[in-house]
Amino acid sequence: MSYAFEPIGIVHSPFREKFGIPRQPGLAPGAKARLELLAPFDRPEALDGLEGFSHIWLTFVFHQALGTRWRPRVRPPRLGGNRRVGVFASRSPFRPNPIGLSAVALEGVSGSGGKIELLLSGVDLLDGTPVLDIKPYIPYADSIPDARGGFAAGPPEACMRVRFSERAQRQLACRDDADGLGRLIVDLLAVDPRPAYADDGRPHRVYGMRLYDFDLKWRVRGDTIEVLELC
Amino acid sequence: MSYAFEPIGIVHSPFREKFGIPRQPGLAPGAKARLELLAPFDRPEALDGLEGFSHIWLTFVFHQALGTRWRPRVRPPRLGGNRRVGVFASRSPFRPNPIGLSAVALEGVSGSGGKIELLLSGVDLLDGTPVLDIKPYIPYADSIPDARGGFAAGPPEACMRVRFSERAQRQLACRDDADGLGRLIVDLLAVDPRPAYADDGRPHRVYGMRLYDFDLKWRVRGDTIEVLELC
Repeated sequence: MSYAFEPIGIVHSPFREKFGIPRQPGLAPGAKARLELLAPFDRPEALDGLEGFSHIWLTFVFHQALGTRWRPRVRPPRLGGNRRVGVFASRSPFRPNPIGLSAVALEGVSGSGGKIELLLSGVDLLDGTPVLDIKPYIPYADSIPDARGGFAAGPPEACMRVRFSERAQRQLACRDDADGLGRLIVDLLAVDPRPAYADDGRPHRVYGMRLYDFDLKWRVRGDTIEVLELC
Repeated sequence: MSYAFEPIGIVHSPFREKFGIPRQPGLAPGAKARLELLAPFDRPEALDGLEGFSHIWLTFVFHQALGTRWRPRVRPPRLGGNRRVGVFASRSPFRPNPIGLSAVALEGVSGSGGKIELLLSGVDLLDGTPVLDIKPYIPYADSIPDARGGFAAGPPEACMRVRFSERAQRQLACRDDADGLGRLIVDLLAVDPRPAYADDGRPHRVYGMRLYDFDLKWRVRGDTIEVLELC
């Protein structure tokens, strides 16, 4: 017995690869994305009343995890990548059904150019993510502030200072929305996206992550991350 | 393009029909259910660490809505059944992909008799519901207490008083867990489960809802619901 679902939309986001992507929604408020509704679901009436909600749930497919075998236990990055927990006690993409769930802020709905798009912020979604459902976030049912959060009780700590090299500052200044992009880069790097298990101890190692149409290059010096360039 | 998912578990719940079921999870804390993991997903290790979380997300199939045609606008019971909103602004089961989402309390995990079961409370799930995924509820990402809740800003009001007839009291007393069952019945009826649009004005109309293995019969007198019998 299995159930087949068709995507109702697709995400256009700055995140072109998993590395560096926020580990949960809401961690980088400046991470903006568009959710484009796909035919035959691109009916403006289907969104009537949604603007009364500040947040929505997206149920989506972890499309990069499709075709991988699930394992009963996984190593969440939150635990440094060396402790294992049950896959159902994690939000890992590698699960029996690779279905993801994110609460994101709804900034607006746009209907221009024949496309119906939801404007989102605080996303943790890869570019190209297929979306199966949109639901309103209903605070009285969905918000449980005193829930016990197991090994993920609090948000990851913003433990790193972030500075931009002169070169990176110049490159940033040439970009549309330089301020917003600068804040996004700080939010993404301040939580130290390096995987613990891949820390090979080379102090001058240059890391790269794909963001929008550029590579963001950076390195670590003590408790500071230096952005080298946007190229 | 479509995606196929296999159920990882099935819900055993007191709710045998849609009528009277809580409209969101958490509204009837006494609504207990078991989620039985199905092979090949019934691996105890897959739940390692889950007991550290007080609540979990269930992603499930609205199996009674399968095969119905979706419409861009629906009439949520919350709005009295006579105002329509976009299907994506609702939590209606009748949606392009009939996928449901509930945060429920995790009371424990049981591994007896060769079955692995999660013990749940506060459920709003029909008996027999196929579950596609279990995820931990992560308060820092999932709880947004100040989210704006549109037309569903607050929980439905418990506006009715509930009393039991002598006959219903006697029948209740013979049941296992009479106290818990009594509280559940009060929680279910206090919010007045009558659909607004079906109120035909007959003051002595007897309503019935299937709960566990019995029919719960009740009628309305002013602001009081009288439980007539459990038969």
